Amino acid sequence: MSEEAAPYVPQAAAYGRPAGGVRARLYDVIFESDTPAGRRFDIALVFAILLSILVVVLDSVPHLHQAYEGTLNALEWAFTGLFTAEYLARLWCVRRPWRYASGFFGIVDLLSVLPTYFSLLVPGSALLLDIRILRLLRVFRIFKLTLYVAEYMRLGEALYASRRKIMVFLSAVVMAILVLGTVMYVVEGPRNGFTSIPVSMYWATVTMTTVGYGDITPHTNIGKFIASFMMLLGWGTLAVPTGIVTAEMTLRGRAAWPPAPDGRACPGCGSGGHAADARFCQDCGARLGE
Amino acid sequence: MSEEAAPYVPQAAAYGRPAGGVRARLYDVIFESDTPAGRRFDIALVFAILLSILVVVLDSVPHLHQAYEGTLNALEWAFTGLFTAEYLARLWCVRRPWRYASGFFGIVDLLSVLPTYFSLLVPGSALLLDIRILRLLRVFRIFKLTLYVAEYMRLGEALYASRRKIMVFLSAVVMAILVLGTVMYVVEGPRNGFTSIPVSMYWATVTMTTVGYGDITPHTNIGKFIASFMMLLGWGTLAVPTGIVTAEMTLRGRAAWPPAPDGRACPGCGSGGHAADARFCQDCGARLGE
Amino acid sequence: MSEEAAPYVPQAAAYGRPAGGVRARLYDVIFESDTPAGRRFDIALVFAILLSILVVVLDSVPHLHQAYEGTLNALEWAFTGLFTAEYLARLWCVRRPWRYASGFFGIVDLLSVLPTYFSLLVPGSALLLDIRILRLLRVFRIFKLTLYVAEYMRLGEALYASRRKIMVFLSAVVMAILVLGTVMYVVEGPRNGFTSIPVSMYWATVTMTTVGYGDITPHTNIGKFIASFMMLLGWGTLAVPTGIVTAEMTLRGRAAWPPAPDGRACPGCGSGGHAADARFCQDCGARLGE
Amino acid sequence: MSEEAAPYVPQAAAYGRPAGGVRARLYDVIFESDTPAGRRFDIALVFAILLSILVVVLDSVPHLHQAYEGTLNALEWAFTGLFTAEYLARLWCVRRPWRYASGFFGIVDLLSVLPTYFSLLVPGSALLLDIRILRLLRVFRIFKLTLYVAEYMRLGEALYASRRKIMVFLSAVVMAILVLGTVMYVVEGPRNGFTSIPVSMYWATVTMTTVGYGDITPHTNIGKFIASFMMLLGWGTLAVPTGIVTAEMTLRGRAAWPPAPDGRACPGCGSGGHAADARFCQDCGARLGE
Repeated sequence: MSEEAAPYVPQAAAYGRPAGGVRARLYDVIFESDTPAGRRFDIALVFAILLSILVVVLDSVPHLHQAYEGTLNALEWAFTGLFTAEYLARLWCVRRPWRYASGFFGIVDLLSVLPTYFSLLVPGSALLLDIRILRLLRVFRIFKLTLYVAEYMRLGEALYASRRKIMVFLSAVVMAILVLGTVMYVVEGPRNGFTSIPVSMYWATVTMTTVGYGDITPHTNIGKFIASFMMLLGWGTLAVPTGIVTAEMTLRGRAAWPPAPDGRACPGCGSGGHAADARFCQDCGARLGE
Repeated sequence: MSEEAAPYVPQAAAYGRPAGGVRARLYDVIFESDTPAGRRFDIALVFAILLSILVVVLDSVPHLHQAYEGTLNALEWAFTGLFTAEYLARLWCVRRPWRYASGFFGIVDLLSVLPTYFSLLVPGSALLLDIRILRLLRVFRIFKLTLYVAEYMRLGEALYASRRKIMVFLSAVVMAILVLGTVMYVVEGPRNGFTSIPVSMYWATVTMTTVGYGDITPHTNIGKFIASFMMLLGWGTLAVPTGIVTAEMTLRGRAAWPPAPDGRACPGCGSGGHAADARFCQDCGARLGE
Repeated sequence: MSEEAAPYVPQAAAYGRPAGGVRARLYDVIFESDTPAGRRFDIALVFAILLSILVVVLDSVPHLHQAYEGTLNALEWAFTGLFTAEYLARLWCVRRPWRYASGFFGIVDLLSVLPTYFSLLVPGSALLLDIRILRLLRVFRIFKLTLYVAEYMRLGEALYASRRKIMVFLSAVVMAILVLGTVMYVVEGPRNGFTSIPVSMYWATVTMTTVGYGDITPHTNIGKFIASFMMLLGWGTLAVPTGIVTAEMTLRGRAAWPPAPDGRACPGCGSGGHAADARFCQDCGARLGE
Repeated sequence: MSEEAAPYVPQAAAYGRPAGGVRARLYDVIFESDTPAGRRFDIALVFAILLSILVVVLDSVPHLHQAYEGTLNALEWAFTGLFTAEYLARLWCVRRPWRYASGFFGIVDLLSVLPTYFSLLVPGSALLLDIRILRLLRVFRIFKLTLYVAEYMRLGEALYASRRKIMVFLSAVVMAILVLGTVMYVVEGPRNGFTSIPVSMYWATVTMTTVGYGDITPHTNIGKFIASFMMLLGWGTLAVPTGIVTAEMTLRGRAAWPPAPDGRACPGCGSGGHAADARFCQDCGARLGE
């Protein structure tokens, strides 16, 4: 496997497929996506994740929580049981369980069931609110979806490739927010809502990103003038990250990001989606033609 | 008809032109745009659609509704009669009426007259408001305009070509909205206006798209910090769809979007980039081919 | 003068330079910019325009108007006298005064002095407010500046070249605003501030352009959901005009917008797109001319 | 060192390295970054700057100021002493101290310590607030960071290269804000919050940059219509600066902005900045290697 291709591939292979038996068959269903059973398992899991998140979201609406508390609670425990079984199965059917458990998806899988159990261990009524908050961590289950959509990995990688440019840009923006927030704190002062430099920096962020809540607004003439300048600055500055990403995409060519319709097919395994400058197939290691 | 042109052409041909007689002549007027009569019919229809929508819009303004109720009602019935006649004429003059009636524009044509008749059949005063709501569907008449501007089809096609990239991007944004909305629900809580996760997600959407109504704003320090982070994230993320569309357009070339589908090379000097309606090379003056 | 250059050049030549005498010398000062006197005249005029606009702007601030009414009034009449003299001089020193008077800048020059005189002719006290409003038309003097900055003409021309794409895009946006505004009028209704379809369309514009005043906000759950959808739509749609302009600029090459002094073609292979400071063709290595 | 590279390099060399002795060794630590000692000094300074700014920011929060006034004050004086020593050391160890003191970083270094001393010289209680404001100038210490991150210089240079296009664009935007602000002042008037032309221009800026605080909103129907037009205008106009920056970046090639790790140097003349697909040096015509 070439160095460039590595990040695209789910690291399932690194967990180690057992040599045979029930564990190997279970491994093929849970970790592989190119068998009919594996595909069905993946689709069912995606639906279960989305449904369990819907339960969490609906449970947070006060009148739904009161009306359907029993049903929502039962569904929550059903999904928790399901995901616990899945987590234990994953641990059992790989040859290096610790490598799975300490990886990104192992931690996500664990975190998506722990809060529900934790709410059982601490049943005190006074702490109820805090426990509910912990249970909301279950919404992180959504990250389990990323495993099943290869494009997210590519998107993450494209952002990773531009990380230094983006850091330079973001730090310049933060510097502007710090300086202009301080200036506005001096100009407007606490009586106009700019009660401290952190609050002024919050206002500067709201203004420069063109969000503009309007909870804090300049009241003095000089403050309005500086704010107008900041708006034009922030508005024009948006061109910079757009320019970075667009130039990146244009130069890589249309084929480079998600679908890659005219990327070369591997002569060995027929797979596509290779990077423009890849010389070996990222899936089977065969040499790619030009 | 060439293969490329096909998607741009209204599928009128599929409805079947009668062999001759009055129906064939009516067909040419209603469905064809390249005869003088057909062109006049199309322009008159566009004006009628825009006027009928103006009547609906004005009728919704309370003081205009009270002052000109009779006039607006009469105009409404006149347009309904006109569009009904047009709908029946379309059904009558094609060889396969069902194919027309079950197509997108057949359904739109029907929906644009039905609500007015429906208000007649159910004259109960209590239901009047609900019926008016159905009548507003007539605003969908505007979609009939799309038939007359081939560029909309091209624009739709360009978006269709980028659909997968856009879906990946949008689903990543929705995931961020879900997670950050939940985090803010935990941090700010119901007493600061974040009454449930769906409301928090609405707030997260308002913030990340830089709309920033200000109806819900963070009040705690940690909430303001997370909100600032979300603004910078949403603001910078806008670069991604822009990059997708721009890279698409740049790679297709200037000639590729709306007019100019055929970047002709000059037979004299080989240069390209001529305008769609140019007849001579802009670089050497040689006559360009069709 | 070559065909391409024509649009960039102020059409002063069309007004006709007198054969000689005082009028010809005055013409050179007023209409020409490449003599020392003409350049000094232009710079003085730009300052006079900016100062006269500053007077109009300051006069609108209530406490400045009360404190310095006499001074501001005197300055206003001084600038009006100056611009009147300039207007008459322009009319006098060209051979075809009517062509100047009926052109864009002739009308702007006239409109920039008329409101002040008009305020004198109608001295009624009851109409005072309306007359002041007419005097504000003097702010249109700013358009006189466009004559002196050739880049504005180029910018206007670049927008003119993209006019059809922009019209298609804008009309699609207006259609979306009409349909979504009507939907929100039905969903939210007058009791939540959506008092009529025009008001709902105003709200839809505020939302889709991500301005987000917050003077009208959705209150129902379904309204918030539709609004969230509209925000994502409007936010993503911004990519389209950006893509149009960026693709245009990228394809024309770096040299193409504002300055564009040297879009040189290679004498060896005819290729273009060379950097402004390139001395050799990047495709065949031939020396590029200056 | 080639001519192009020069602007990126801190102009430390211009201050003059002493011939030898303690001053020369100190010079190597303070001004050079490529020795272990110089690198450690730079990193320590960056941390000191960030910490000192954190002290200023925290000191502005009322309840922190009251609780930790002594600690924050002591830290402030410690950092001021440190930066004063650093400033004096810089002055002492260069051969041309005045060239350093009158340069950008010399002034920043001086301004970052002066306000604290100034607060000591004017100990009057009534003036305390004003002095605190001067002390906030210390936040400008953040600019000292720019010296240590070469990319900021490149970013600044890229913006400098586009300065004329950006000026043309910004002045066009300011003209639109002036004219549309005046129109809205006439249409809405003081009773709807548009109390003067400057206030209307502030509102126009808030609207056209899509910030949309909502502190001033149109109330009349015609005002809402004009505002909607302005939003669409401002929203679409954002494409222009984005287009400028993106076209610049795309044409320079992916390698051109910040890191530029693989910009090929010409084997003939050593120049860089070639397009990614260039095969010959654009400066001397030599064949470029792969």
